[in-house]
Amino acid sequence: MNAYEIILGKRDGRELTVGELEYMVLGFLDGRVEDYQMSAFLMAVFFRGATDAETEALTRIMLDSGEVLDTRSVGGPKVDKHSTGGVGDKLSLIIAPVAAAAGVRVPMLSGRGLGHTGGTLDKLESIPGMRTDLPPERFAAVVEEVGMSIVGQSLELAPADRKMYALRDVTATVECVPLIVASILSKKLAAGLDALVLDVKVGRGAFMGTLERARELANALVRTSGDLGLPASALLTDMSAPLGRTVGNALEVRESIEVLKGGGPDDVRKTSLALASRMALMAGVESDPGAAEAATEDALTSGRALEVFSRFVEAQGGDAGVVDDTARLPSADVVLGVSAASEGFVTSIDALTVGLAATGLGAGRRAVDESVDPAVGIEIEAPVGSRVERGGTVALVHARGEDEAAAAASRVADAFEYGDAAPEVGSRVLEVLE
Amino acid sequence: MNAYEIILGKRDGRELTVGELEYMVLGFLDGRVEDYQMSAFLMAVFFRGATDAETEALTRIMLDSGEVLDTRSVGGPKVDKHSTGGVGDKLSLIIAPVAAAAGVRVPMLSGRGLGHTGGTLDKLESIPGMRTDLPPERFAAVVEEVGMSIVGQSLELAPADRKMYALRDVTATVECVPLIVASILSKKLAAGLDALVLDVKVGRGAFMGTLERARELANALVRTSGDLGLPASALLTDMSAPLGRTVGNALEVRESIEVLKGGGPDDVRKTSLALASRMALMAGVESDPGAAEAATEDALTSGRALEVFSRFVEAQGGDAGVVDDTARLPSADVVLGVSAASEGFVTSIDALTVGLAATGLGAGRRAVDESVDPAVGIEIEAPVGSRVERGGTVALVHARGEDEAAAAASRVADAFEYGDAAPEVGSRVLEVLE
Repeated sequence: MNAYEIILGKRDGRELTVGELEYMVLGFLDGRVEDYQMSAFLMAVFFRGATDAETEALTRIMLDSGEVLDTRSVGGPKVDKHSTGGVGDKLSLIIAPVAAAAGVRVPMLSGRGLGHTGGTLDKLESIPGMRTDLPPERFAAVVEEVGMSIVGQSLELAPADRKMYALRDVTATVECVPLIVASILSKKLAAGLDALVLDVKVGRGAFMGTLERARELANALVRTSGDLGLPASALLTDMSAPLGRTVGNALEVRESIEVLKGGGPDDVRKTSLALASRMALMAGVESDPGAAEAATEDALTSGRALEVFSRFVEAQGGDAGVVDDTARLPSADVVLGVSAASEGFVTSIDALTVGLAATGLGAGRRAVDESVDPAVGIEIEAPVGSRVERGGTVALVHARGEDEAAAAASRVADAFEYGDAAPEVGSRVLEVLE
Repeated sequence: MNAYEIILGKRDGRELTVGELEYMVLGFLDGRVEDYQMSAFLMAVFFRGATDAETEALTRIMLDSGEVLDTRSVGGPKVDKHSTGGVGDKLSLIIAPVAAAAGVRVPMLSGRGLGHTGGTLDKLESIPGMRTDLPPERFAAVVEEVGMSIVGQSLELAPADRKMYALRDVTATVECVPLIVASILSKKLAAGLDALVLDVKVGRGAFMGTLERARELANALVRTSGDLGLPASALLTDMSAPLGRTVGNALEVRESIEVLKGGGPDDVRKTSLALASRMALMAGVESDPGAAEAATEDALTSGRALEVFSRFVEAQGGDAGVVDDTARLPSADVVLGVSAASEGFVTSIDALTVGLAATGLGAGRRAVDESVDPAVGIEIEAPVGSRVERGGTVALVHARGEDEAAAAASRVADAFEYGDAAPEVGSRVLEVLE
């Protein structure tokens, strides 16, 4: 067996064996397979795709390339959630405590923001003192005590994915369904998990721009996870406009707390409940969709989810005082208004443009080794459907300085489109795949 | 401009600009573009192909990446020939002197054997004293004096091709028409050349297995060469069985001399004349195909081509005495007969199997840094169409030792197929493309 024959096989459309995939992935990890051979292989996979059996094998090999997080010591039904990433996507901060308050155990592994999308860990770390690098035993203990925990993926987890992703990132081989599936699942398949709920974003601010592509990815994720013994379900949710009213780390924590207190934007509340109730259903804590919806609704409105969030923050070293007083979160020195370019109805707000403007302010990263500023970001004052006067404020830019604020304000202004008629604002949840 | 965007563009089927192709090729040569990016790019080219404009630009960039051989000091119409490589393909040794004797100037750049195919330089070097590494001025002087010269491609010629080919060889990106075209032409487009004749081999012993693929390559070669200002013409010739009766360096020189003396196998003689007359026609030394055929036929039968060959060998330091006495060529210690497995007509002799057997004996190379043995090889005693008795000798293996001889004999025996009826033996020349 050698790398050349394996690349050739994939290039010519032959189904590879588990042994061949192992040779490529583990060989790349230990240096037997050269990076230039791996990149040619990845491009061949981009064009040829992969069978279900190949995708399953690839995921399993990448998962087993490092440590596998073990949650078996935690009692109760354990369900994790994964989002493919969006703009203003703070849902994990709401879903995890809601699901936990409804009786699900939520051992959640999260990532950091990159490019125009934010990351749950960055958001959490805007809470003073908050730690996301708990050792495995402490992670399990927090899930046991509080009902949930959110931590980062350690360096020991799926090292083959880490090395392959770095190569894909510079060789234009990221946008490939089987490779995305293996990358996501190899980091999510903690031992002892009972189910996985996937939030696959669709639209301009998402990784998958079209419903068709998002559906393809969601189906492959659900199928592969099932093949590997972990029942999964996916929701396709709309990411054409930023989710909620805030984009930026501390701003999104504040908004999440508002939702947990029973307020906040309707789209954030509803999408969170849809995902959390799906987790409750998959966990088996409720036996039908209606009951799961009622249970999660109750977990939120009763204040129990807020209480779980507060205990979670405290358990991970954070200042739980932010729950009662969000002014304890970092705030930006400069706040600049963005004016409406014309009067009428806001018909769309381009999520990608807003995401890039937020990254430009320092809320996100252009490269993995950059750090983020917790205080900066963008606040939408006039969401899609609002009626505005010309010159009225449609958004606020939170920035470190006047120059950055002006640059971001100009980009954000471009993200807004106006029309004479009120647009139809539908549900963010587009489809549910089981 | 960056490598990522260029790979992405090719991956998604966008036509690249000359500047982008320059960035990739020259960047790869000087290290700005990483090898893992180049290999992903090459695989994307494999799947997406290249437009005529891209192929032309790629060839030009690779040509200009190093020195360009200058033949402008040589008077008269200058035509080179290129073969895509075969088994027993000694045609250059005959074509060049025949064309030269017919009035064409032939400054020929040749390569070495690799894998199952032989190389003209290796064959020439089996003549004691023969040099193929002449400096450019001496090369031009030999062409001027003798009418022809054959030398190797120096390290300074198309270094981008050299580096790219080495990468293609280990990443399964060799079999790609635009990359093959750029690789061949970037090494062939010497300044001052008036035309190029291409011998594109088809069949089991060739790079292109099917007529369709060979035609695609031939058309792309002719079109790109023309786009770059060098008129070209291509013959598609059959390489399903070894060409002539010999495979191996000194053995093939001996057979070439036989043909130049008016004897030798019919297929070698006819294919050589077809290619040489095409060179005479392209050079303009004859104005119509019939006259060109007559002129090259006369160049051969009159003995003038043999005389040119003899002067060429002498001019490049070789022992011209081999022309009168081929026993002065190196010969192998062991000669072992290969017996017919059944009686009947020889219906086919698999060129690939014979080529690999010859390489196994040491006549060719498995890797570029190996050396070859001039004396070893295979002699076909019963070519396609012969009637044989079971146990009769169909081939002779020339080897260094008994063990190698036995191993090769077993492979060669497998290359022969027999049948009850005499097969139709057609012309090697399948098509002519202008």
